[in-house]
Amino acid sequence: MRHVITALVENKVGVLARIVGLFTSRGFNIDSLTVGETENPELSRLTVVVKGDDATIEQVRKQLGKVIDVIKVIDLTDTPYVERDLLLVKVNVPPGKRGEILEVVDIFRGKIIDVGQKDVIIELSGTEDKLEAMIKLLHTYGIKEMARTGQIAMARGSK
Amino acid sequence: MRHVITALVENKVGVLARIVGLFTSRGFNIDSLTVGETENPELSRLTVVVKGDDATIEQVRKQLGKVIDVIKVIDLTDTPYVERDLLLVKVNVPPGKRGEILEVVDIFRGKIIDVGQKDVIIELSGTEDKLEAMIKLLHTYGIKEMARTGQIAMARGSK
Repeated sequence: MRHVITALVENKVGVLARIVGLFTSRGFNIDSLTVGETENPELSRLTVVVKGDDATIEQVRKQLGKVIDVIKVIDLTDTPYVERDLLLVKVNVPPGKRGEILEVVDIFRGKIIDVGQKDVIIELSGTEDKLEAMIKLLHTYGIKEMARTGQIAMARGSK
Repeated sequence: MRHVITALVENKVGVLARIVGLFTSRGFNIDSLTVGETENPELSRLTVVVKGDDATIEQVRKQLGKVIDVIKVIDLTDTPYVERDLLLVKVNVPPGKRGEILEVVDIFRGKIIDVGQKDVIIELSGTEDKLEAMIKLLHTYGIKEMARTGQIAMARGSK
């Protein structure tokens, strides 16, 4: 099953290596991983998406909680939460197709953030499904390059 | 100096651990790190933002290129590139302040993606500066929780 795990960690050298090592030593392949700043400059927030059976992931979650410098670990899988991913995609613009591509970007409420002679760079944030739906449409024109941040997630409402 | 390094890597167990280890063993603290899918399901794209002196980072970049499963490493720092970050932020909504908060979100072209009784979750993508400007304004109301993906980046125009 797919699990979305977030952890608040101290913003120190080596913490990330220990956490990634924990998943790797169990043979989990990490689907996506992000580490970014939080409301507190001394803490980073880590979001990991992994697939695996529930029991093993629960073990990893517990072990994560024991790592020094890890403040809090939450497996969001069973709580209502929102999840977003960010995409940058460089799309080939065939002659006469610029208008069509702009329409696709508009429909998904994306943004064109760079225009080259033969390509454009599109920025789109949203759920995995939304990103994948736009990517599918853009394949028609030719995708030159693509970068995704991977998921970040947050529990809905107040704790 | 701040460096933005991207790497195309094989989507295999253990690659991420080796790369993070490379930075950690040199004592670099990673400012942000993202790993996401690419146009090719067998490859992931890694974006790392690190600070350090140019000579040492150049060494790390070279060593990265030698890691098996690393296909290509680019230090974008000296080329024109676009860079984006994604933010989810849960903001306290004091009585009578909902309208004001909506205005802030509108100005930055953010989106409200969840509404609780006493808080809202806002989604905003953009440059680091833009995200920080909005966060600064939202502090007035009280930030309950914040998650950022960290930067992804892409060279402008055609190669």
